[in-house]
Amino acid sequence: MSYAPSAALSSRLQAVRLAMAERAVDALVVTSLPNVFYLTNFTGSAGILVVRHDEVRFITDFRYATVVGELGESGHGCPGLELCLMTGSYDATLASVVSACGRVGVEAAHMTVERHSWLAAALAKGGPAALVSTVGLVEGLRVRKDEYEVATLREAARRLSGVAVRIIDDVRRGRTEREVAMTIDHRVREAGFSAPAFETIVASGPNAAQPHAKPGERILSEGDLVVLDFGGVYDSYCVDLTRTVSIGAASGRARDVYGAVRDAHDRAIAAVAPGRSPFEIDQAARDTLAERGLGEAFGHGTGHGLGIEVHEGPRIARRRPDVDIEDPRLLAGMVFTIEPGAYVPGWGGVRIEDDVLVTDTGVEVLTDATTELIEIGF
Amino acid sequence: MSYAPSAALSSRLQAVRLAMAERAVDALVVTSLPNVFYLTNFTGSAGILVVRHDEVRFITDFRYATVVGELGESGHGCPGLELCLMTGSYDATLASVVSACGRVGVEAAHMTVERHSWLAAALAKGGPAALVSTVGLVEGLRVRKDEYEVATLREAARRLSGVAVRIIDDVRRGRTEREVAMTIDHRVREAGFSAPAFETIVASGPNAAQPHAKPGERILSEGDLVVLDFGGVYDSYCVDLTRTVSIGAASGRARDVYGAVRDAHDRAIAAVAPGRSPFEIDQAARDTLAERGLGEAFGHGTGHGLGIEVHEGPRIARRRPDVDIEDPRLLAGMVFTIEPGAYVPGWGGVRIEDDVLVTDTGVEVLTDATTELIEIGF
Repeated sequence: MSYAPSAALSSRLQAVRLAMAERAVDALVVTSLPNVFYLTNFTGSAGILVVRHDEVRFITDFRYATVVGELGESGHGCPGLELCLMTGSYDATLASVVSACGRVGVEAAHMTVERHSWLAAALAKGGPAALVSTVGLVEGLRVRKDEYEVATLREAARRLSGVAVRIIDDVRRGRTEREVAMTIDHRVREAGFSAPAFETIVASGPNAAQPHAKPGERILSEGDLVVLDFGGVYDSYCVDLTRTVSIGAASGRARDVYGAVRDAHDRAIAAVAPGRSPFEIDQAARDTLAERGLGEAFGHGTGHGLGIEVHEGPRIARRRPDVDIEDPRLLAGMVFTIEPGAYVPGWGGVRIEDDVLVTDTGVEVLTDATTELIEIGF
Repeated sequence: MSYAPSAALSSRLQAVRLAMAERAVDALVVTSLPNVFYLTNFTGSAGILVVRHDEVRFITDFRYATVVGELGESGHGCPGLELCLMTGSYDATLASVVSACGRVGVEAAHMTVERHSWLAAALAKGGPAALVSTVGLVEGLRVRKDEYEVATLREAARRLSGVAVRIIDDVRRGRTEREVAMTIDHRVREAGFSAPAFETIVASGPNAAQPHAKPGERILSEGDLVVLDFGGVYDSYCVDLTRTVSIGAASGRARDVYGAVRDAHDRAIAAVAPGRSPFEIDQAARDTLAERGLGEAFGHGTGHGLGIEVHEGPRIARRRPDVDIEDPRLLAGMVFTIEPGAYVPGWGGVRIEDDVLVTDTGVEVLTDATTELIEIGF
């Protein structure tokens, strides 16, 4: 396991403080664990970070005290971080840490109503602290990957591409979806990933009409298209890749649908560049499928950001009038999937997915495995 | 994959409506996905259930429409469930579903501050609906497992015990923690689990002093105690098991610590019966370790409930004065872990964990693997 250097954490912390200043927030309570990891390299299951302009406190419990100390000594700790051992409960410890703070920003997209109510009541008992909702403060920074993150994601994508090439030998007539999924997960681990990034999808024949099918007992059979969608967590960063293969010779219809999805995938990637709108990228994929009569068959977005979480910003999808109030733009350092698909109930489906990085001048495709239709057994 | 029969869902829904009536709630918005699964058998990644006294509506998106239809036809659907396809956004769809409802209960322990604010503002624009916080309404029912759940957990525990026996052959001098963890995960899948229930722990030598160590590149060496903590998800239910083994002959100190933890484990299990307090069970383990001078070395709780989540109620731990206001009692049908441990910084640690069911008269240990100290290579 490798970690971002302390210097990177220091830059991230500076950026957080700038964003706090813009919102006139004196302290930021970071309860989202991916955000906590981003700022501290802490990978445990419980911890709350409190960032102030002149200090950083980290609340965790007995189980993780040693780990936090070791991170600090290893050159991968959060500079200036002060450990506060949880006493009584996390909520009570947090209340005492922020009680003197003034405007206390909380992460409204992560904090539960229950914790917020408890904390507001505890702080109302005295002292100057008042809770202020913030949304996406740390996520807004995470969306552009720094040098360490790009290197990590590039290496992760390289390893996942190796898995994509190797698993073709494991997809065979007569095996069940579940068996193939199990083998993929093992190959992912063998390739150096700490875990699959999500539940692996192996969807064959008509099951492939469900974009999020769960692998079951269906046996792969002649003429099936099989969607293989898998990912891995490497040094805490997620990558994600999909290929669709044919068991035996593909039918004319299968070739047509596959070709349309592949064109949509290629055109969407070709559209990626800094300054472009994510809606345009989605539209490029969507128009290509619509031209082939598959507009209705593509019901999900074209892509999602990758990083500490397997679904994060940016969202590469249609504009949602109720949500997308601003005019978002792609920026160098963003990493996301391009994964158009076509799903035909009762018949089956196709999806092709790669991971891309927005560079200063255009796009770098991080994953690398053929997108030619592979006909297994031929 | 097997699912609870519709009749079981029907009983659970009845219990929810009773709890809603006690809280004078006209509609309950279930946003916690484990709670949604409990009431509908829905295993997708996005969906909101709205339970009213005379109807049940389920909001999900395009990706899952087919799955919900199939569940209904298979005899495992939620009786009377009406599908509402998400349009625009989940929040907007939810607002329109509950706008005419009166007192709308939300799950305060799961709903984020952001969604709550949005929803409250949307509902304030007109109509009679007002949001009411509820905590633990569905979880309070989940804590006692029904017949289908007990059968599922029993089978899951039987399979995980098989893994515990088999992996002893995989724990060898010269292998790294990571290699052993990978093998365990593969054995868990081979045993019929859909996934590990959490990140497998293989903590050797001094690393075992961290209760939640991550498996790393350390090589298992003569004289190490190795904590192996792993779990699996079987038909959506989680089981969890830990054994500690010795590489080569155990030292006198290792035998002492192991013996103390084993006694704590045995005494805690012997104390389990309906009507007992969970604090008593914890105390039984804690007293045993304190008698051997290991009171300080046992910093976590004795156990946690198992079910749809790998950590759920009941909590078998010390009373927390700020949280535990009522006087909880063990009830028949509860399933939880008993997992005392002792952790000595710089030296290592021991944990022994089994899964138990509270029966009408006492306790049934669901997992079944020896707790004798195994010395590998002897």
